[in-house]
Amino acid sequence: MTGSLTIAGLGPGSDAQVTPEVSAALAAATDILGYAPYVARVPPRAGLTLHPSDNREELQRANEALRLAAEGGQVVIVSSGDPGVFAMASAVFEALEQAPHDRELPIRVLPGITAMLAAAARAGAPLGHDFCAINLSDNLKPWGMIEKRLRLAAEADFSIAIYNPRSASRPEGFGRALTVLKEAGCGERLVIFARAISAADEKIETVALNDARPEMADMRTLVIIGNSQTRRVGRWVYAPRRVE
Amino acid sequence: MTGSLTIAGLGPGSDAQVTPEVSAALAAATDILGYAPYVARVPPRAGLTLHPSDNREELQRANEALRLAAEGGQVVIVSSGDPGVFAMASAVFEALEQAPHDRELPIRVLPGITAMLAAAARAGAPLGHDFCAINLSDNLKPWGMIEKRLRLAAEADFSIAIYNPRSASRPEGFGRALTVLKEAGCGERLVIFARAISAADEKIETVALNDARPEMADMRTLVIIGNSQTRRVGRWVYAPRRVE
Repeated sequence: MTGSLTIAGLGPGSDAQVTPEVSAALAAATDILGYAPYVARVPPRAGLTLHPSDNREELQRANEALRLAAEGGQVVIVSSGDPGVFAMASAVFEALEQAPHDRELPIRVLPGITAMLAAAARAGAPLGHDFCAINLSDNLKPWGMIEKRLRLAAEADFSIAIYNPRSASRPEGFGRALTVLKEAGCGERLVIFARAISAADEKIETVALNDARPEMADMRTLVIIGNSQTRRVGRWVYAPRRVE
Repeated sequence: MTGSLTIAGLGPGSDAQVTPEVSAALAAATDILGYAPYVARVPPRAGLTLHPSDNREELQRANEALRLAAEGGQVVIVSSGDPGVFAMASAVFEALEQAPHDRELPIRVLPGITAMLAAAARAGAPLGHDFCAINLSDNLKPWGMIEKRLRLAAEADFSIAIYNPRSASRPEGFGRALTVLKEAGCGERLVIFARAISAADEKIETVALNDARPEMADMRTLVIIGNSQTRRVGRWVYAPRRVE
């Protein structure tokens, strides 16, 4: 049987947000690879081998997936959210570039509900106007580039979705990001802290940026900074469609 | 029975990309409102009233939905893609702001696969690094704001997803956008034209920005402009994770 590789997005956490095409790919898989907490979302069954691995092993995981598919496996790499947004899809194409003999393999990317969409839906509609998404991890890019992008995003008056705001190994960056945005005149903007969206311990909190503290975010938090027009109505936060 | 209002995203077109929670909301609805082509995706059944309407009637549609829900209906507004990205969710909260008596209504926003995620998945992983999303329609914002955002996005080296690049009533904007990006030094960047993604007549085309022509886009096209590092591997296009 010809092997194949599918890179699939599981959405933020709830099975009710997993698309049917992703569920079908999981049901047809012989091998599932991914960061251990995501692989743990797939129930074991006969004929399926689960290959959980640590975080930060993306390239190694991608190479292993290509190898299993070349051997005839129906291989699925799972990501949380969408696999193309700060997740496994780029790593697979990077691995493919180094493995020309695998370029004829059937590969599919199946999109998922990325964290900012799930968080925005719970908060209201903070991404209803032009926006940007910035990964605050500086493992793979210089911190100066992140600061520059934050300043330009503020000047463009984008709403800003911040992925990976803070982790044990990077405790400082998010506080610096808040400082950069204050200096850029965004102190009055609304900031949404969306933690563990669609999980049992889900929590949403909205404050003005001037009142935001770094410790309001952790590695399970997605942060959305509103644009200058973003406003509240009741318990909701939204970006108006019309801007003069 | 207490009424409720759900704003649900149908994804880009294929039923295989509709989340189970959205399918469940459609199955429980008494009334479904939306732009006619989106409402047409919901099969008629006893007990369900379909309320198709024209484009550009977002606020009127939102008010009608609030009214039906206040009368006890289980009302669903459908959007293509994700309802929070350049779609109906912001219009509903705008309507809610003008209707304080409706603020106690149960409202839910259910996310969907927005066009840029579906297009990116078909192309490879062009949104694997920091990116922005810009609605090129100037119906609700001044054109100068769009040009400013394009220039700043180029300077920030974001990948840029362009929604609504071109329509019969706005034939000129996309050509001007390409000119702005060329002037900003983006001529060598890759541009992905993703048309009718997940439909039978789906088409993907990638060219250098210098070779992009306005007529490559129409109202069913989502355009993704790569960042300076975006590259091809075989038939795929991706943004590398690591940037120096």
